[in-house]
Amino acid sequence: MRGLMMDVPLNVSALLDFAAKYHADTEIVSKTVEGPLHRYGYADAAARARRLANALVRLGLAPGDVVGTVAWNGYRHVELYYAISGSGMICHTINPRLFAEQIVYIINHAQDRWLFVDLTFVPLLETLADKLPGVKGFVVMTDAAHMPRTTLPNALCYETLVEAERDAFVWPVLDENTASSLCYSSGTTGNPRGVLYSHRSTVLHSYAVSLIDVFGLSAREAVLPVVPMFHVNAWGLPYAAPLTGAKLVMPGPNLDGASLQALIYDEGVTFSAGVPTVWMGVLNHLAQSGKSLGRLERVVIGGSACPPSMIETLRDRYGVKVVHAWGMTEISPLGTANHPKRKQVDLPPAERDALAARQGRPVFGVDMKIVDGAGNELPWDGTAFGALKVRGPWVCGRYFNSDVVPSHQEAGWFETGDVATIDADGNIQIVDRVKDVIKSGGEWISSIELENIAIAHPAVREAAVIARPDAKWGERPRLIVALEKGEAVTAADLRAFYQGKVASWCVPDDVVVVDDLPHTATGKLLKSELRRLYGSA
Amino acid sequence: MRGLMMDVPLNVSALLDFAAKYHADTEIVSKTVEGPLHRYGYADAAARARRLANALVRLGLAPGDVVGTVAWNGYRHVELYYAISGSGMICHTINPRLFAEQIVYIINHAQDRWLFVDLTFVPLLETLADKLPGVKGFVVMTDAAHMPRTTLPNALCYETLVEAERDAFVWPVLDENTASSLCYSSGTTGNPRGVLYSHRSTVLHSYAVSLIDVFGLSAREAVLPVVPMFHVNAWGLPYAAPLTGAKLVMPGPNLDGASLQALIYDEGVTFSAGVPTVWMGVLNHLAQSGKSLGRLERVVIGGSACPPSMIETLRDRYGVKVVHAWGMTEISPLGTANHPKRKQVDLPPAERDALAARQGRPVFGVDMKIVDGAGNELPWDGTAFGALKVRGPWVCGRYFNSDVVPSHQEAGWFETGDVATIDADGNIQIVDRVKDVIKSGGEWISSIELENIAIAHPAVREAAVIARPDAKWGERPRLIVALEKGEAVTAADLRAFYQGKVASWCVPDDVVVVDDLPHTATGKLLKSELRRLYGSA
Repeated sequence: MRGLMMDVPLNVSALLDFAAKYHADTEIVSKTVEGPLHRYGYADAAARARRLANALVRLGLAPGDVVGTVAWNGYRHVELYYAISGSGMICHTINPRLFAEQIVYIINHAQDRWLFVDLTFVPLLETLADKLPGVKGFVVMTDAAHMPRTTLPNALCYETLVEAERDAFVWPVLDENTASSLCYSSGTTGNPRGVLYSHRSTVLHSYAVSLIDVFGLSAREAVLPVVPMFHVNAWGLPYAAPLTGAKLVMPGPNLDGASLQALIYDEGVTFSAGVPTVWMGVLNHLAQSGKSLGRLERVVIGGSACPPSMIETLRDRYGVKVVHAWGMTEISPLGTANHPKRKQVDLPPAERDALAARQGRPVFGVDMKIVDGAGNELPWDGTAFGALKVRGPWVCGRYFNSDVVPSHQEAGWFETGDVATIDADGNIQIVDRVKDVIKSGGEWISSIELENIAIAHPAVREAAVIARPDAKWGERPRLIVALEKGEAVTAADLRAFYQGKVASWCVPDDVVVVDDLPHTATGKLLKSELRRLYGSA
Repeated sequence: MRGLMMDVPLNVSALLDFAAKYHADTEIVSKTVEGPLHRYGYADAAARARRLANALVRLGLAPGDVVGTVAWNGYRHVELYYAISGSGMICHTINPRLFAEQIVYIINHAQDRWLFVDLTFVPLLETLADKLPGVKGFVVMTDAAHMPRTTLPNALCYETLVEAERDAFVWPVLDENTASSLCYSSGTTGNPRGVLYSHRSTVLHSYAVSLIDVFGLSAREAVLPVVPMFHVNAWGLPYAAPLTGAKLVMPGPNLDGASLQALIYDEGVTFSAGVPTVWMGVLNHLAQSGKSLGRLERVVIGGSACPPSMIETLRDRYGVKVVHAWGMTEISPLGTANHPKRKQVDLPPAERDALAARQGRPVFGVDMKIVDGAGNELPWDGTAFGALKVRGPWVCGRYFNSDVVPSHQEAGWFETGDVATIDADGNIQIVDRVKDVIKSGGEWISSIELENIAIAHPAVREAAVIARPDAKWGERPRLIVALEKGEAVTAADLRAFYQGKVASWCVPDDVVVVDDLPHTATGKLLKSELRRLYGSA
């Protein structure tokens, strides 16, 4: 029997409509590329989004069309999120930090019809435009006074476009499974893969991340998304802030410590989210300037683990609580966040700190398991580790226009590529990537665990552990080290250093000493290159 | 274009499964009808719900069947919520406080197949059983040791039934629009009307009420639903607590002040929800005993407005914040809750208190408007009042097995029957019921406003205002008063008392003095009787 409640689909447009109606004068404050701060209320933002929706129609765009954005976090980008998705089109956020070839690939693969581009990125797009045959034109996100001379074909000015339109636009009522936005996940191998979010997944994710045990948003918060809107929708904050009536503070292109501190202080920001490197810049500026973080209460940190010293400094010197979270493009992005349970609140500080280092528990809507190489579920004892799989209504079911689905081999589950433990309270701890783990005789050995031990040796400057093929065990760990200047060490010394720290069968069989280890542009170990050089028997 | 996220329907069973997996040892603590406290974890509750699901099948029940409960708030009732809905059956919660004829009506109207009954209510059901031809049997919610001798036909013992079954049961994956539960709304006129909730509406409502600006639940809270599970699903708390991993504390039949204080204190309850009369009993007990409310932080009060003195006492003497909320059976029940916006946090106390007296703003998912008698929308100025209409995915679309839909005359909107103002921040204040308002010359006059003025007159003990028909204006207000002992007053005196307090056209035209005003069993003015006696020209 069917229930008899109203049939109201979950639509992204309803989020901004709600804020416009019930939080009309709550502000969106944006640092602009042009320089000044821009501020207006949700009612203004909604009116401008409706004008923009009229402009999209005038550009010849129709429901189902893909519209790309290459832009910082700012009010015009918020307007684009809602105008594009609200019209039944697909908002494709493009990460300008990708390699040029990747940007060209994803724009063409997504079949973007028009691109909306911040002033900053006009030069970048000018170098790519002739490789983008499907793009009909470019809208530069600025006003007439700042409109640059550009070689971009069909280049229009955002403000000129919007000002020509009427406020009136009625958002279509869309089937909630309609695609709303698109973000490409850049794996370390192969082409980027598109994750096509729906109105339903976006709204459900927005409810979930607003809960206390995730971001904890309310109409008393001022939210600063440092994490970019071109990277998994700024972790959903441009949707969750209107849902809860929170003030939204956008940093624009200014992500240095001084700019962020000023914005946090001046706008009374209470909540922020970003990666650890951003907070390093903020902390350096605070130390140099003697300034404070004003009303800031909480920062959610994801992407990589926050160093304990940063957590302590933020907490003890600035009264800011760090919350670890874990997610990925394919999970909209939120999977887990780390908040204590009731029974953990009064634990001794050392135990609480140890718990806080984990990536946390899932929010309702996300379900998880860890499996061994044969797909058998592993126990939740905080020790056993395996491939982490997730499922739920805001988890990617398959990639956009792609038949390559290694991550979706088990029906109903998405394989994250991460290796994790889960404890009895459902907290995960990421210990490695599946492709980096050494599969030895049916058991998995964490490369990261072995690397961390090697680094603790006084002679070792940097360490990597990779698999080498082994006739008997399948794979065995090989340790590759770069030494501190003037130091020397034997393989036997290093192997002995592992005794008592890991099971004997986990100790690397052999050691390669090199001058330097190869890195990616962002400073991560380039394990693919190490495997190429040292991965054979 | 369709998004490519996983197709995972929102199912009620997932709420308990989630808590069982990620909050396995978080407790449900229940005061039992038999006497002792019962405590177990969510994992235990889920295992018992699966056994019960097997028992339901053994009773011959099938998906779509309606199963009734007549029970207090307790762990067995929680098991029934999940076992019945999770199996694809419909959990019909029956309010034992209704008149006997109403109980018979709704059991037969809902076509309940089996009834699960707490010990308390066995005598009541024994008097009704012969009027319930569709009910195949009764399960008494107790163990074999407490099983009473009863005249109920086909009477089984809950624990005997459950203990005979296996833990293993796989919840079916249900279309999320499948009906999950049923609750009758008892209007003051006509037969009760059934509201048929769906899995989707229940899960969405659970996300929404868990948000900070509604109940604010987390894994650090201990939640005491005083509001009964037989009345709009205890405001959704038996669903929202597992969603957030909150401890659930159930008061059973003991709703007196001493019992509630002991439970709140002993179990470290942080959050509760109920009607004002319950808190009156608690406050009286606190004043007599000198005891405290322990860790209690917040109580949400709905049903009727909380007297300012109660708000002050709870806040100033016991450190407990009162949150006003508004809802109804047809809204699952939550429509609005009252929490300050950021700009209101630092208002002077008197202004904040005035704001806190309102019923609050909608949570995302609920949309509202107020309209005049002709259906025209009225301004949100905090003064204009009109019929309050709401819509959203957890608002009743139509009643169960009923063609009488006066509340659904405008497509897509539910008419609440309440008359309200809405201010510029979206806060509602309920000022009357539509049927009690006096419709005079196209304008609405609030009967409650006129009654409150009359009561302020020193000679008046109690007052009611009703409409009398008027050839020119349609309706005009008539004041009916009972006087204080020994007092006398003229109609002219009372009319003069209104001068300067309301617009002159709102002053009652005539006054009837009576010895006593008629009341309902629960002490409310019986306006239908007043209209019968004094409502003619």
